[in-house]
Amino acid sequence: MTGRDGGADLAPIGNSPVVILVRPQLADNIGAVARAMANGGLFHLRLVAPRDGWPQETAWRMASGADRILDAATVHATVAEAVADLHHVFATCPRPRHIIKPVLTARGAAAELREICARPLRAGLLFGPERAGLDNDDMAAADTLIRYPLNPAFMSLNLAQAVMVMAYEWWSAADATPPRDFMTNETQVATKADLDNFLIHLVGELDESGFLRNLPKRPGMIRNIRHLFQRGEVTQQELRTLHGIVTELSLGRRQRGRVEEN
Amino acid sequence: MTGRDGGADLAPIGNSPVVILVRPQLADNIGAVARAMANGGLFHLRLVAPRDGWPQETAWRMASGADRILDAATVHATVAEAVADLHHVFATCPRPRHIIKPVLTARGAAAELREICARPLRAGLLFGPERAGLDNDDMAAADTLIRYPLNPAFMSLNLAQAVMVMAYEWWSAADATPPRDFMTNETQVATKADLDNFLIHLVGELDESGFLRNLPKRPGMIRNIRHLFQRGEVTQQELRTLHGIVTELSLGRRQRGRVEEN
Repeated sequence: MTGRDGGADLAPIGNSPVVILVRPQLADNIGAVARAMANGGLFHLRLVAPRDGWPQETAWRMASGADRILDAATVHATVAEAVADLHHVFATCPRPRHIIKPVLTARGAAAELREICARPLRAGLLFGPERAGLDNDDMAAADTLIRYPLNPAFMSLNLAQAVMVMAYEWWSAADATPPRDFMTNETQVATKADLDNFLIHLVGELDESGFLRNLPKRPGMIRNIRHLFQRGEVTQQELRTLHGIVTELSLGRRQRGRVEEN
Repeated sequence: MTGRDGGADLAPIGNSPVVILVRPQLADNIGAVARAMANGGLFHLRLVAPRDGWPQETAWRMASGADRILDAATVHATVAEAVADLHHVFATCPRPRHIIKPVLTARGAAAELREICARPLRAGLLFGPERAGLDNDDMAAADTLIRYPLNPAFMSLNLAQAVMVMAYEWWSAADATPPRDFMTNETQVATKADLDNFLIHLVGELDESGFLRNLPKRPGMIRNIRHLFQRGEVTQQELRTLHGIVTELSLGRRQRGRVEEN
């Protein structure tokens, strides 16, 4: 009935924080939250007093295959019950007032969550209901607040988007992908010798064609051509293609020359 | 008809990247994208061949007040037309194959986007259709690819979630919020002298009550109490409350003592 036989083969990845939705209103959003959790490698979901009851078919439809997370979700009557077995509770709140607590960015919270989960202690993340957000009693149940750096002129954040940002930061906090990489697939970035070979080929044909006949300007023109090809991390495959292009274009010119000679 | 008179008073913030949705299928998602863009301080939206035409009422309903972004969105027949006036194009793609291009994380891309927009050049972000993602021709229109670090076991990312992550990183790249802060509102963190005053008050009452009567253990007990209150960055307001608590509890003990004496 609720798609319990379908979906991706998800399971908990190490000791990860529990996502706790406090009085969520729309089952659609609960499903979208599960999808966002799966994107960021989170698994444990708890629902405090969901407005429309639980389970709700529509949540599974919106989860895009994150069924296992919904299957394993538990329902709790109160925040106190939902956090009872946890050691550290974070509460997300865009505009906390009159509260004396540490406030972390999403990134700062992700780093602390990684440390807490590595000790290993059990951590939880409270997200409030769609319209009102967490109330003062909910926030008093938290050790630490999380406030995302976002456009203060437009703070209306969808529940699943709020979970997405935190799940993304959780995953990123343990990810070692370099910020910039160069994807070459089956080929390799060319060495300077490879590049020189091509430039010698090109300049030779340009000399033959008369393109470089202005001898005072010739060194500068060659340098400019070199600058262009230096800029883009040319691969060996691309150099083979460039050799082919120069050869083919030159061939056309030579054949035309021969035709004109006849 | 399309809510053009409503919504938040949004406008471009400086020179920010253009979000380009390529062949988007669902108007719901286009609205959710506008909301996510507003959250992250993005404004410029272009739609390439939206499947169901444009405008669509439902987009405005899903935008939660980010109407201005939808009002200003433009429709284009091809990717080439949509990027024609831009200087640098990034394409988001979870699983690029057989492409030789730089690949950035979302965070790496946000840093480069900030640099590009500061020069100032015009940058664009391509997002593919919901099911298939960008095709090979779309990706050939890009200078640089973006691949988010996310759970490889569950890469199915909702379109608005994909935009949310990038918008969040765009905003964060120029945000100076410290990763951890301590929110005290109208009160201040107490100085060590304030804390000592309280501990002297507390220890005095504990001596009177007999709680510290084990003299060999007394220094260690006092140290442990000090450790507890040192841990939490107590505020001046909280110290006033603690003074009050100790005074009140002591008063009860003394009154009882007086009653027992009678």
